[in-house]
Amino acid sequence: MTTAISYPLPPAVVEATVAAIRFDANGLVPAIAQQHDTGEVLMMAWMNAQSVAESLTTGRACYWSRSRQSFWRKGDTSGQVQHLRELRVDCDGDTLLLLVDQVGVACHTGRRSCFYRAAAPDGLSTIADVVTDPLVLYPPHAHDHQAP
Amino acid sequence: MTTAISYPLPPAVVEATVAAIRFDANGLVPAIAQQHDTGEVLMMAWMNAQSVAESLTTGRACYWSRSRQSFWRKGDTSGQVQHLRELRVDCDGDTLLLLVDQVGVACHTGRRSCFYRAAAPDGLSTIADVVTDPLVLYPPHAHDHQAP
Repeated sequence: MTTAISYPLPPAVVEATVAAIRFDANGLVPAIAQQHDTGEVLMMAWMNAQSVAESLTTGRACYWSRSRQSFWRKGDTSGQVQHLRELRVDCDGDTLLLLVDQVGVACHTGRRSCFYRAAAPDGLSTIADVVTDPLVLYPPHAHDHQAP
Repeated sequence: MTTAISYPLPPAVVEATVAAIRFDANGLVPAIAQQHDTGEVLMMAWMNAQSVAESLTTGRACYWSRSRQSFWRKGDTSGQVQHLRELRVDCDGDTLLLLVDQVGVACHTGRRSCFYRAAAPDGLSTIADVVTDPLVLYPPHAHDHQAP
């Protein structure tokens, strides 16, 4: 689905990309993470200008955690890193799509994708199994219980 | 990627699904639309409780247009309807994923997907062609110039 891009991208490209994004009143933009080869939508999180620049420079998906109000380099706690393949900007510049190579699982419940509940005739049903025990992702002795 | 679900879903299921969603302070939730068979991420838009219920009842994706502050039954103006296959709720209940069958193009620029710009070594480059002239989607005599 994507050609391999080497990171860091040149600073001028990073700057032009950030400039093309319309961040909201809180300085954030929603970012969809999609597994680059299978097309599976893994999660949605938020980025600020710093996390966009960090992602395009390091080649690793970095977000802004609204709940913790902090920079969130995905996988730092859980090891479930997202290697960035390509960052795309939508027509209005107000949503991003990240094509990634997800190590392990994207969801803090230990499922591959966060979208594991579907509205079906018999109710809102769980359609994906837990792949990794969340206790393995976040051992009780872990210093900082972050999302994956 | 999905089993075929018949709409309308039972009112109790619609109610339980809406109840599982954590709408933001404006009563909205981001909804990602993905082509059900190819996995292509088409667009991201916003839904309120009414548009979720409408989608699960009619089997057509309906959104809430923040720019127009109005209910937006996708395709009413442009004909570029999204037939709903499955609506999924993420782990935190604050993002939706809609598996759809997109008629024509999702983007108001006439491209299949809104995510047609990619950060590449030579800059933010356009990676998808216009499939349908926007003037065909929104003829100058159209009463209401909506997004597709």
